Amino acid sequence: MLEIREATASDLERIWPIFQAIAAAGNTYAYPPDVTKSEGEHLWMALPRKTFVAVDSGELLGTFYLKTNQAGQGAHVCNCGYMVASAARGRGVATAMCEHSLRVARDLGYEAMQFDFVASTNEGAVRLWQKLGFEIVGRLPGAFKHPAQGNVDALVMYQRLTDRD
Amino acid sequence: MLEIREATASDLERIWPIFQAIAAAGNTYAYPPDVTKSEGEHLWMALPRKTFVAVDSGELLGTFYLKTNQAGQGAHVCNCGYMVASAARGRGVATAMCEHSLRVARDLGYEAMQFDFVASTNEGAVRLWQKLGFEIVGRLPGAFKHPAQGNVDALVMYQRLTDRD
Repeated sequence: MLEIREATASDLERIWPIFQAIAAAGNTYAYPPDVTKSEGEHLWMALPRKTFVAVDSGELLGTFYLKTNQAGQGAHVCNCGYMVASAARGRGVATAMCEHSLRVARDLGYEAMQFDFVASTNEGAVRLWQKLGFEIVGRLPGAFKHPAQGNVDALVMYQRLTDRD
Repeated sequence: MLEIREATASDLERIWPIFQAIAAAGNTYAYPPDVTKSEGEHLWMALPRKTFVAVDSGELLGTFYLKTNQAGQGAHVCNCGYMVASAARGRGVATAMCEHSLRVARDLGYEAMQFDFVASTNEGAVRLWQKLGFEIVGRLPGAFKHPAQGNVDALVMYQRLTDRD
């Protein structure tokens, strides 16, 4: 039974191996591949407005953050990032976390959620976000330097959370 | 004769009134309208990689910053922001600054320049960036909360700086 709850400082020890592995692989996120633990903590747990973990039977399977994407006139749009432990992929953890994040975003009054920089080669993620209501609203030519495939496009994905125009 | 040079700490006193007026107007940038001077200095002069000023006969007419837009796999794309003093608009200051920024970006080895969040209502700017080689590569529905027009689209604009795909 997957439980999703806000992260506490003591979760860092279990978030960090997931974060480090995904940053080091360098094929999905634009974090420095050699990011340090304290930088990782800053980026994932300090800068965002909220950070969550997905836990099953005491095992930490995934994590996500939610933050305001722009200040001022853009502050009604939030941004999230999600990471799943490699051993837990294919078990619906990302879906559960994204659905949870959309509920949290609505509860916090955000009017939309935006993903700024989705590697177009990350096709599983792109399909999943589309299934969960996101649209591709932008394509940045060659903006993601994939470690194996060279410069590939990055996508901007977006979902309104209100009916209002 | 317009001179464009890197900003120094002592330029803050002349940059701040421009920054404050544009942030307070809230119709072009996603800065908090009530931003403080020290926050403005941080956002415009400390966080970016470089900050420049455009000066004519000792008068500071405009300013821009250049920064790396994403870390890691996105670090080959830069981002710039430009501000022109209200009294100096229509004199080609923005064009001169943007052209200068494109040269600096190439010199620094960036492969592309991206504007993340151009209010679609800022039609003069959109036309100018297009004239200077930028394309609209994304449209964020209702992502800019215009003080007079309500939620309007924000545009993502992009220009490659190399011939490479």
